[in-house]
Amino acid sequence: MRTRELANLRAYHLTVDIGGTKTACAAGTSSGEILARREHPTPLARGPEACLERIARDLRRVLRQIKGTLPAPVSIGVACGGPLDSRAGVIYSPPNLPGWDAVPVKAFLEERFGLPTFVENDANAGALAEHRFGAGRGTRNLVYLTLGTGIGGGIIAEGRLYRGTTDDAGEIGHTTILPDGPECLCGKRGCLEALVAGPAIGKRAQRLAGENPQSLMHRLARGGEITAVHALQAARQRDGAAREVWRETGYFLGIGIANLIQVLNPQVIVIGTIAVHARDLLLRPTRDSARRHAWPRALKAVRIVPAKLGERVGDLAALCCALNAGR
Amino acid sequence: MRTRELANLRAYHLTVDIGGTKTACAAGTSSGEILARREHPTPLARGPEACLERIARDLRRVLRQIKGTLPAPVSIGVACGGPLDSRAGVIYSPPNLPGWDAVPVKAFLEERFGLPTFVENDANAGALAEHRFGAGRGTRNLVYLTLGTGIGGGIIAEGRLYRGTTDDAGEIGHTTILPDGPECLCGKRGCLEALVAGPAIGKRAQRLAGENPQSLMHRLARGGEITAVHALQAARQRDGAAREVWRETGYFLGIGIANLIQVLNPQVIVIGTIAVHARDLLLRPTRDSARRHAWPRALKAVRIVPAKLGERVGDLAALCCALNAGR
Repeated sequence: MRTRELANLRAYHLTVDIGGTKTACAAGTSSGEILARREHPTPLARGPEACLERIARDLRRVLRQIKGTLPAPVSIGVACGGPLDSRAGVIYSPPNLPGWDAVPVKAFLEERFGLPTFVENDANAGALAEHRFGAGRGTRNLVYLTLGTGIGGGIIAEGRLYRGTTDDAGEIGHTTILPDGPECLCGKRGCLEALVAGPAIGKRAQRLAGENPQSLMHRLARGGEITAVHALQAARQRDGAAREVWRETGYFLGIGIANLIQVLNPQVIVIGTIAVHARDLLLRPTRDSARRHAWPRALKAVRIVPAKLGERVGDLAALCCALNAGR
Repeated sequence: MRTRELANLRAYHLTVDIGGTKTACAAGTSSGEILARREHPTPLARGPEACLERIARDLRRVLRQIKGTLPAPVSIGVACGGPLDSRAGVIYSPPNLPGWDAVPVKAFLEERFGLPTFVENDANAGALAEHRFGAGRGTRNLVYLTLGTGIGGGIIAEGRLYRGTTDDAGEIGHTTILPDGPECLCGKRGCLEALVAGPAIGKRAQRLAGENPQSLMHRLARGGEITAVHALQAARQRDGAAREVWRETGYFLGIGIANLIQVLNPQVIVIGTIAVHARDLLLRPTRDSARRHAWPRALKAVRIVPAKLGERVGDLAALCCALNAGR
């Protein structure tokens, strides 16, 4: 190992990726290498304080794992569902963390570990990670969309994370795409999320399967509820109705993305999870629709691509919160 | 006059505001004081070179007007319709300047005057002006919308103009608000511009007047075409159909603004021209609709206000291009 690599390796950070189901604690270097890692089920039922104590325990274990080989870590990065106050490092009441309200994660970890701690919402942290290590490397203007059960978004503008006035920028999943469209969990109608997130794809699959009794989706679901997963499996086997599910989804996703292109004129739009699984089945109709709904100059400047970090995004996102310190 | 004010006054800039109808040349200080000004009809029919020569002539006149009282100007700021390349200072083919294509405004003026020249599209320049001198003073995150015959937009993010990858950010007028909605001049359907710019308001007034034979709008138009102006005059006299014109317009404008709030989480949204004339007739239903289409946290952070600079925006916008030099 060369001296420079060694020097890079010596500077490392602790990371915490807090999710509704599991929480991961790790140590990573500025080049994205994960040195040690612990994961535990988030003990939501025992309240936020127990969750924080559990995080502190796993962080100490991570530290013990690499002790002796390296000096002290530089800082701690935390990625967590929003809404939150990134400056104060306080997490408000994320939908995926019931019972949490005004939880002072930054103050807790700084007190326990004596290390500067940086907190971002997970979509912003994911944007930082895809920008630094993933599909958006080398770009100045990026939009990152998570596309799973819900939709989150993060914006990199002129090379920097754009958080907005109250850390609420990038809530692209709840822009209105179809006024008077289907109801969204947020209470509005026709939100992008209500049209293209996992549950919306499932509903679309159910409708189109209903209209097409011959569709492979019926067989795949074996009498159970037809979901986005069945629509994906059937579409891969060239089932017409299932392919239509992805075409319709791409049509609406393309409108949402075209609106982002018109407003933000980004170099790259990186789409996670479902876009990573469905690839061209979703991305081709999405690009077609974006082309019809955005202007040529801005379109020419942008790539619409699946996320690249896959399962690694959580740790790297939290790591990037630490690496992004002060920006 | 105190020394500091004098010093400020001594540093001044030349400004050029190029419009489809008229072009204004002026000299202004960093505090926004216009020291001298000339205006001429843009000689479009004689081609872009003649337009540039005419600008050079007026700038020399402006310089003569203040000669002796002040030293040489610091730089030149140019505001002009887009698309353009702000870095190269080349103007492509703005809809309002037929016959222009790849016009090197920056190179021309730098060669003639030996002064660094900074070119921005007029919506971006207007955003800078409302941010520095107008309704957005003291904010970090601002969106500026021109709302006239068309809709332009400019974004200030973290205190800086956000231009996007190819100077095409902020094209908010052509985000899709109503898929399959009315045709837009740009060729798409259901663009914000096709729903709420001047001509769309005129069409809405014609439709609602047609449905309401008693409406004051008929009398005001005296048998001629009913326009947004008649809708405004009639609404001020409490004509029900005319008020509905503004309510419907505000409904769609509110959706477009809510989408901006969701994506950009700005502190202020400044709306020009028609919003300045119509004030609460338009802004009240716009705010109502934005409230129904955006999330409470981001809504609480934002003010939706009319532009403040009025007729002065052109000179101040061009001035801000010079003052914004290098950012």
